[in-house]
Amino acid sequence: MIERYSRPEMAKVWSDENRLRAMLRVEEAFLSALSREKGIPSGQLARLRRSMDRSLLQASRGKEAVSGHEVIGLLQAVSARLAGKAPQLERYLHYGLTSSDVLDTALALQLRQACGLLLDGWRRLASRLRGLSRRHELTWMVGRTHGVHAEPITFGVKLAGWHAEALRNIERLKRARELIGFGKASGAVGTFSQVGPEREAATLKALGLRPEPVATQVVPRDRHADYFHALVLSAAALERWAVEIRHLQRTEVLELEEPFGDGQKGSSAMPHKRNPVLCENVTGLSRLIRSYETAAVENCVLWHERDISHSSVERVYLPDAHIALDFMLARMRTILEGLEVHRGRMRRNLDSSHGLVFSQRVMLRLIDAGLGRLKAYDIVQRNAMRTWKTGQAFQRALARDPAVARLLSPRELAACFDLGAYKRSVRALLRRGGVL
Amino acid sequence: MIERYSRPEMAKVWSDENRLRAMLRVEEAFLSALSREKGIPSGQLARLRRSMDRSLLQASRGKEAVSGHEVIGLLQAVSARLAGKAPQLERYLHYGLTSSDVLDTALALQLRQACGLLLDGWRRLASRLRGLSRRHELTWMVGRTHGVHAEPITFGVKLAGWHAEALRNIERLKRARELIGFGKASGAVGTFSQVGPEREAATLKALGLRPEPVATQVVPRDRHADYFHALVLSAAALERWAVEIRHLQRTEVLELEEPFGDGQKGSSAMPHKRNPVLCENVTGLSRLIRSYETAAVENCVLWHERDISHSSVERVYLPDAHIALDFMLARMRTILEGLEVHRGRMRRNLDSSHGLVFSQRVMLRLIDAGLGRLKAYDIVQRNAMRTWKTGQAFQRALARDPAVARLLSPRELAACFDLGAYKRSVRALLRRGGVL
Amino acid sequence: MIERYSRPEMAKVWSDENRLRAMLRVEEAFLSALSREKGIPSGQLARLRRSMDRSLLQASRGKEAVSGHEVIGLLQAVSARLAGKAPQLERYLHYGLTSSDVLDTALALQLRQACGLLLDGWRRLASRLRGLSRRHELTWMVGRTHGVHAEPITFGVKLAGWHAEALRNIERLKRARELIGFGKASGAVGTFSQVGPEREAATLKALGLRPEPVATQVVPRDRHADYFHALVLSAAALERWAVEIRHLQRTEVLELEEPFGDGQKGSSAMPHKRNPVLCENVTGLSRLIRSYETAAVENCVLWHERDISHSSVERVYLPDAHIALDFMLARMRTILEGLEVHRGRMRRNLDSSHGLVFSQRVMLRLIDAGLGRLKAYDIVQRNAMRTWKTGQAFQRALARDPAVARLLSPRELAACFDLGAYKRSVRALLRRGGVL
Amino acid sequence: MIERYSRPEMAKVWSDENRLRAMLRVEEAFLSALSREKGIPSGQLARLRRSMDRSLLQASRGKEAVSGHEVIGLLQAVSARLAGKAPQLERYLHYGLTSSDVLDTALALQLRQACGLLLDGWRRLASRLRGLSRRHELTWMVGRTHGVHAEPITFGVKLAGWHAEALRNIERLKRARELIGFGKASGAVGTFSQVGPEREAATLKALGLRPEPVATQVVPRDRHADYFHALVLSAAALERWAVEIRHLQRTEVLELEEPFGDGQKGSSAMPHKRNPVLCENVTGLSRLIRSYETAAVENCVLWHERDISHSSVERVYLPDAHIALDFMLARMRTILEGLEVHRGRMRRNLDSSHGLVFSQRVMLRLIDAGLGRLKAYDIVQRNAMRTWKTGQAFQRALARDPAVARLLSPRELAACFDLGAYKRSVRALLRRGGVL
Repeated sequence: MIERYSRPEMAKVWSDENRLRAMLRVEEAFLSALSREKGIPSGQLARLRRSMDRSLLQASRGKEAVSGHEVIGLLQAVSARLAGKAPQLERYLHYGLTSSDVLDTALALQLRQACGLLLDGWRRLASRLRGLSRRHELTWMVGRTHGVHAEPITFGVKLAGWHAEALRNIERLKRARELIGFGKASGAVGTFSQVGPEREAATLKALGLRPEPVATQVVPRDRHADYFHALVLSAAALERWAVEIRHLQRTEVLELEEPFGDGQKGSSAMPHKRNPVLCENVTGLSRLIRSYETAAVENCVLWHERDISHSSVERVYLPDAHIALDFMLARMRTILEGLEVHRGRMRRNLDSSHGLVFSQRVMLRLIDAGLGRLKAYDIVQRNAMRTWKTGQAFQRALARDPAVARLLSPRELAACFDLGAYKRSVRALLRRGGVL
Repeated sequence: MIERYSRPEMAKVWSDENRLRAMLRVEEAFLSALSREKGIPSGQLARLRRSMDRSLLQASRGKEAVSGHEVIGLLQAVSARLAGKAPQLERYLHYGLTSSDVLDTALALQLRQACGLLLDGWRRLASRLRGLSRRHELTWMVGRTHGVHAEPITFGVKLAGWHAEALRNIERLKRARELIGFGKASGAVGTFSQVGPEREAATLKALGLRPEPVATQVVPRDRHADYFHALVLSAAALERWAVEIRHLQRTEVLELEEPFGDGQKGSSAMPHKRNPVLCENVTGLSRLIRSYETAAVENCVLWHERDISHSSVERVYLPDAHIALDFMLARMRTILEGLEVHRGRMRRNLDSSHGLVFSQRVMLRLIDAGLGRLKAYDIVQRNAMRTWKTGQAFQRALARDPAVARLLSPRELAACFDLGAYKRSVRALLRRGGVL
Repeated sequence: MIERYSRPEMAKVWSDENRLRAMLRVEEAFLSALSREKGIPSGQLARLRRSMDRSLLQASRGKEAVSGHEVIGLLQAVSARLAGKAPQLERYLHYGLTSSDVLDTALALQLRQACGLLLDGWRRLASRLRGLSRRHELTWMVGRTHGVHAEPITFGVKLAGWHAEALRNIERLKRARELIGFGKASGAVGTFSQVGPEREAATLKALGLRPEPVATQVVPRDRHADYFHALVLSAAALERWAVEIRHLQRTEVLELEEPFGDGQKGSSAMPHKRNPVLCENVTGLSRLIRSYETAAVENCVLWHERDISHSSVERVYLPDAHIALDFMLARMRTILEGLEVHRGRMRRNLDSSHGLVFSQRVMLRLIDAGLGRLKAYDIVQRNAMRTWKTGQAFQRALARDPAVARLLSPRELAACFDLGAYKRSVRALLRRGGVL
Repeated sequence: MIERYSRPEMAKVWSDENRLRAMLRVEEAFLSALSREKGIPSGQLARLRRSMDRSLLQASRGKEAVSGHEVIGLLQAVSARLAGKAPQLERYLHYGLTSSDVLDTALALQLRQACGLLLDGWRRLASRLRGLSRRHELTWMVGRTHGVHAEPITFGVKLAGWHAEALRNIERLKRARELIGFGKASGAVGTFSQVGPEREAATLKALGLRPEPVATQVVPRDRHADYFHALVLSAAALERWAVEIRHLQRTEVLELEEPFGDGQKGSSAMPHKRNPVLCENVTGLSRLIRSYETAAVENCVLWHERDISHSSVERVYLPDAHIALDFMLARMRTILEGLEVHRGRMRRNLDSSHGLVFSQRVMLRLIDAGLGRLKAYDIVQRNAMRTWKTGQAFQRALARDPAVARLLSPRELAACFDLGAYKRSVRALLRRGGVL
């Protein structure tokens, strides 16, 4: 992922060094499980761990250039480094293992690290949402369906919905982290042909992972594709909110504004601009993450006990998607922390549709007063269409319609236009959304 | 979905009639929850249920053509049907509800039905896999990585891996069914503005569903996109197996053949052909199902309290993907039930690579005998490359190499080529795969 | 594709009958090319054509159920139909052909028909756009970037952009139609092993198609994937416009409204609603069409001289995407024909941002008057931000700023706020967009 | 794109420096077009060009960190650099332009550079294919459909098909390069509100680009999505060939082998392995490139006169896809240059199916001898199925079948098994594929 969208901590998880480190950790855990049987002194094991540094990475790359094989390159580099100093280790390093044992298990370690960071990001975001939702529990605004005024809601309820979505995404990532916490040390074609299942058990236990029940030569890729969907849906949630803020920041609406810094410029041509560019950025990055999913799923269909076509795909999409999502989470936090909420404008917009947002209530009162539903609907719609056209206050229009006046007293009609009635379940909704 | 790929039971779930029926079931459950408060006699409720038949569907469509609104079309048709016979019901039908309450809750009912059928399909397939895997516990064949001979496996182990994948998919679908078992009756913009949460609770309980904690006007679409991934991965699993069978049926390999019926023809031009067309069909249908996922995820990003852009997408992709997957499951069952397993050929193929498949074992024995890993690798590779080139038996080549002969006695070398050693963990793998 | 989104003419292209008819046309053209050499009387050829009817389709299906092969089913059904009446034809039918010769060539015929209908749809839409664009050449509205007021445009210019996009799509579809106008009659594995290239030339010429230079057993699928992209982009164009109309129909903006029929209802709960549901429908269908592209591209990678995994995919995505796009084109025409354009509202919205939309002009005048760009930018931005905050008229704010007043006379400043200046290139843009 | 898959020349096109350089080139071309009117001395223009160096990039980034705007950051950095030395230039730099004028036009320059490199890659590959195809004009091998032996082909014909596909991709990329050679200098919202079309004409002419007829504030993204499809199909072609080589390298087939270097290792566990890892790498990268397409198409649907959600997507997918495809082209060239073609094995495989590959020929001779097609088919199929089962030579089986012997003399039957007859159109096919 390009630097522009990378934050250091997540980028580090996906660095070449960290990959190498994870690989060596796996080799070491396996050697350790083998050490008693093969008589490998623990001092030699310690040497292995210490051998990891940047120069090893360089050496390993140099060897790979000849062998065309990443793991062999690493083994050669380690051997060269330890030459003569750790003879048993040199002999038994990677003993009975195949590259995928190391690569897939190391990948599981990286994915768990990365997933942990994403969970942190989500939790901090959720916490911010809780605060905002509580503060705006009774900040009235119009609810919109199809982009058109529907009925009153509060901004707090909208945010409670976001919070509930955040919780769903946290649950998904937690499940994903479980899903992906599987490694293997079953060797070539996964049959434990050279070293039995006990070594795998010990190795993975030491690494905090579980053994893939039946691996081919690789951990099956449906696991990774399943895992990845949690990222895609996380991104889609952030995209949905970003799109919402963009809508609410349009000039005619202007109920929300994402933060706009001192010294910030909106346009090189038009000095007056304040644009929701952070939200647009989040929108775009979600497209990118979403697009990787096809490749993730295609990776499931490896041939026989495995081919290696998934490798190039994973070297790109896994780092890129994690880094981009981590960035989006941080960016959304920035947005929410600096979010300007224009309560006055929310209220003015709510009022601007002449009371039409109370139409359902009028219809139901007419029904309660004895009208059939279809009839009541027609009467209310007829008046509403007039209001759309003329801009006349809806309540007045209804009051003048004999079909209404016959059934509802002025007072009853007025009660339909009372925002108070819409308050009834607000608190319950915040509670249901986990905000209270 | 076109008829060619539709099985009646699943097609029925997605029929217009069943959709309508589910919608009426929701309306009825809600009315029932409201009946005491609004004084709706239970006889009138029963009328509602009885009103569902094909002619109602026609009538409903006719009304929709005018109103441009599916739910209103239905309400009008029902009202016309009940005119005068159930006055309270006519008045309170859909009282305080919005269309999405009915549509999304009805969709949840359909999805649970459909998901149940998929689970049945998977369970039957898993059972078949168990039988096959046990039968072939010790049917030796070559394990292949990169399409190239790797090490010996048994066909039973391969199938145990499939079975483990089947179990993962069953788990996924069970979770998916839970995920999707949410409805809503919170009305316009999801705020319970007209009828409170208790009615929703009663309604959904009667339908066996749970309330969406904070809905906008719709059940949030991340739920559906999450659900759908289980179908995509199910399809990918079947595709993986289909591709495997296709590989194993190629003329030069011919270890497996999918069933080929009496009277079946493989080609209009070449009468000799027996092609794995059922497996190719499964392969193609998985591409189709996979492709829908992008649309499913894009649907998450609805505007504000909802727009209706998801509706057209769901009217197509949900039925199509369920029907296609149901068809694939049945087809794979047919394939496995008629699968011809050519054990003799499996063994001949295993033997055809001159013993190269035992190369790792030789290398490890050289290491055990005191060689460093890299050195041992080079010696074995050198001999293997000669065998690739000349076709000379690998064991003989090694026996003649002084570097090998110095360390391994002829007997020790011969032991490396003993299939028996590869048997050690077979049973454990079948157990791990849930087969035993 | 479900009936709801199917128009009869396009649906007919993709009917089973039409598919069969196209297949028979190919068989007949090939037989005809062979007739002199093989002595097939022309009367027998005529019988073939006449044999096509619905009952042949049924018979063909019945045969296919046994042979598992669509083309063989057809050949058997035709033979049974002609039994004894056309002996030479019966013998030489399909002589030297393979199924793909018939299927792929017939598909080319269908695709050309279908593409023709799409082109008609686009042309009619373009014509409507031209009219609208001309009519609104000088209907002023605000141009928006990031959803925020930018500078004045005219609705005619916006539509000229749509028209230019329509023209691009027409060009794309014309190219696509050329691309797809390729058939083959080169037999099994495409080598003309039984009947030479001259027969292919004659056959395809009679059908108005060109020969695939080097086919495998099939016409290569990159052709179809290339073709399909024209549909995807067509759909994306319509989606872009639909999204634009949805934006402009939101309550706070309300510059456009899609047609809302008499008797139409916007919501089952809220009688006041007028929602842009047609546009939302177009939006959703584009997602669907877009999603098929992955499958179309995956189809390119067939094995060896072909496998048949593409077939199931194409049986679904090609009809569905054509039918959906045809529907979208018609729907967009309906939308544009009934589009309500609220000029007054456009003007009010343009004026509502207090003159900020003229900020660039002020900045450039300051530069012309001698200021450096960065300095000019800062002065204008400073005043603009004040206007955003206070709602004070931008012109007045500037007039009071000594940094401005020093360089621009009141008259010069006022000239910056003259809409007339923005009119200069309107006509040129309409011309460039092909509208004039 | 990660370094592993980057080649320097293509990476350079997408470097930050090159991006900046392209942006400055656009600014300069525009200034130059404006210079007479605004009186900008040519010496100042030259300064602008000289100001581009790495430190400007750093300075520009620093400014962007404050303004949150890439183009403004650059303008500020340039201004700081030129402070006092080029006053007119400083004033008129970017005069009347908006950021997208610079960004989109610069992107067009980069895309043309990048596309040129891809075309080079394709041309070199095509040249290699021509050589290989000619050399193997008469290298017989079996043609396979469904992975099953079909009829004889020559390797030269297979490669002629690849060459024809290469030519199609070259045509596509040439068209794509035309498509993308459009820039804009029409300013904010694309209306030439401050500087007229003549300046745009002069600017773009100097850059070798054409003006977008009607831009919004950006060059419309359907252009980029259309362009991008050429990359996706290029990748799919390479994937198809890679998959083919992988198939032909499987142990049981072994007709081809990708190059395997001295010192190369196939597996860390199994020293005998020679795996088609280069081809698998090509396969994976195609998945990646294909996956980006969804995002490219979603980018088409920008809001109003533009939003900037496409930007983050393009910063990633455009470089990544070009770099990956460039790498794939080079890798495929490496593969073809070192490809080992095992003619002997090809012939042995062809012969291994007992003559079944000649079944069509026998059927047609029976038809020529007077049998009806269906009858002839059944006779030949019956014998073929026996051969499949028993491995008995197909010719012998037929010879013993009275139904055959009655119509074909032993000599006529033998003639059906003569490879010579399949040679007839080989040369024509190479010619049709552009190889001769």
